[in-house]
Amino acid sequence: MITIKDVAREAGVSVATVSRVLNENGYVGEETKKKVLKAMNSLNYSPNEVARSLYKRESKLIGLLLPDITNPFFPQLARGIEDTVNQSGYRLLLGNSDEELEKELDYIQTFVQNNVVGMISATNHVDQNIYDALQIPLVLLDRTTDQYPSVYSDGREGGRLAARTLVDKGARRVTLMKGPAHVKPAQDRFKGAVDVLSDADIDFSVLATTSYSFEDAKGWAEELFQKYPNTDGVIASNDIVGIAIIHEALRLGKRIPEDLQIIGYDDIPQSSLSYPPLSTIRQPAYEMGQAAAELLLQTIKKEPGIETKIEMPVEFIERDTTRKE
Amino acid sequence: MITIKDVAREAGVSVATVSRVLNENGYVGEETKKKVLKAMNSLNYSPNEVARSLYKRESKLIGLLLPDITNPFFPQLARGIEDTVNQSGYRLLLGNSDEELEKELDYIQTFVQNNVVGMISATNHVDQNIYDALQIPLVLLDRTTDQYPSVYSDGREGGRLAARTLVDKGARRVTLMKGPAHVKPAQDRFKGAVDVLSDADIDFSVLATTSYSFEDAKGWAEELFQKYPNTDGVIASNDIVGIAIIHEALRLGKRIPEDLQIIGYDDIPQSSLSYPPLSTIRQPAYEMGQAAAELLLQTIKKEPGIETKIEMPVEFIERDTTRKE
Repeated sequence: MITIKDVAREAGVSVATVSRVLNENGYVGEETKKKVLKAMNSLNYSPNEVARSLYKRESKLIGLLLPDITNPFFPQLARGIEDTVNQSGYRLLLGNSDEELEKELDYIQTFVQNNVVGMISATNHVDQNIYDALQIPLVLLDRTTDQYPSVYSDGREGGRLAARTLVDKGARRVTLMKGPAHVKPAQDRFKGAVDVLSDADIDFSVLATTSYSFEDAKGWAEELFQKYPNTDGVIASNDIVGIAIIHEALRLGKRIPEDLQIIGYDDIPQSSLSYPPLSTIRQPAYEMGQAAAELLLQTIKKEPGIETKIEMPVEFIERDTTRKE
Repeated sequence: MITIKDVAREAGVSVATVSRVLNENGYVGEETKKKVLKAMNSLNYSPNEVARSLYKRESKLIGLLLPDITNPFFPQLARGIEDTVNQSGYRLLLGNSDEELEKELDYIQTFVQNNVVGMISATNHVDQNIYDALQIPLVLLDRTTDQYPSVYSDGREGGRLAARTLVDKGARRVTLMKGPAHVKPAQDRFKGAVDVLSDADIDFSVLATTSYSFEDAKGWAEELFQKYPNTDGVIASNDIVGIAIIHEALRLGKRIPEDLQIIGYDDIPQSSLSYPPLSTIRQPAYEMGQAAAELLLQTIKKEPGIETKIEMPVEFIERDTTRKE
């Protein structure tokens, strides 16, 4: 085993000097420091995981920042990431931002303090330049921007697909639910759906919502039928809201899909367990997590020619809340 | 600022010796090591976060090992833990074991390598002594044993409560679903339910299941009605399975709760969104996470007189899959 003494001999310096470099403690000239680091490299000096992180600034930790793991879309993403980074020996530091800027900043800081070698973030605050000072690889997940490598699904097409499907299947009084304004992918799909509905020769209404929480989903469903009792096609803001709408419609005595068609978004595992099972637009959450992890690992390893914008396909999953013909 | 030289002087040893202690590299006698550690302590020597973790074995990281974050019971637990440890400046390293012993061992090892100061584990393998060598505080979550501090809900009472409720509400041909054999809390609630059903003057059948996955839930529901088509009361192994049973029963034309009563377990957020909304036995998942985090932090801080067995109450949540009278 290579020891600190070997490094000192190779570098032509004292053990104390090597120690100072290792511990970043006390003065060491730039030239000397280089010599020590070179000696460590050439000897493949490897005291232990933690000590190594001291001078190489390398650890096996990756920071993962999500809005909220209790939103059923995100556990799938997280598993896709974890399963992938695990295979390369990396571990995940997990944080939930609750979409709050302050929490997000706090997590970024402590991730860096804990020497993460890279970070994956599903943030809505990238425009506020809070990642600009970050010195480590970053991959944005479920979000896109020109500034950073990112993995996302095609929200605009997802919205178009949802609207086109309902129109093609005969809905004539469509209600389009608009997801929370600060969630960018929700706005992409909203715009995609508006594109298609505007071009179609049908009436449509927009219901703005401000959250995806379970607690609020029932409230949106009730509001929907109070405001638009005669709607015959609902594009839900996500699957959870879609499931709440199914049950409110049944409570009101509507027949699904004869009187009312409903289409969700995400394809969370629960959506196939609703009654009737929810037709939806699938985002491949697990695969998106895998792709983000692979992209981050490639970036960490500085592999050449990396594709840094990965757009994942969306697809219509036909179940029983849309008409079959 | 205190340097490595000051520590060497205080301990009466060479800088190289202090370095060896810091890097755990090369031979240092036990007595000498103690002197160095004592000197570091008395001087409050603090090079930097990582170097400190080298000799104090202290970081601000806590390891969290869950079976599977995509099981909707666990995100709530995880948030309870995260929100609590965050307030004390700690961060979570997350791992999913998939109930596999090898994955669990691998995570324990890498958590330790990353210098976690404590660990919370929802393990089913504690009997295999895999935690015996662990030198850091451990709290078991959703599991109990005499060996370690633990936070769990009263599964036996939960099972009794589910059975008592169905019997009291008039079910006479009860089907009791038995959760996966390796999941200990599932067995506790199973036994509790058997206790009550055995004492009651009614017929009952047991359907053994081997998983909690979404993919399998529908299959269990189908099997249930194939084997016991005349059952009028189902104690589901958890809420996901309970929701699948609701929908299979509706598909078969059964009236709920007139023909068939169903009671779930957990009270995951989705259970109030099923149609009809699922009556269930609530485990306070978020609060269990909070309690486990608090217990771990108290243990890390070596607070005196800690209550190390924390049993959380379960309660019946009445919704629309059980009769009202």
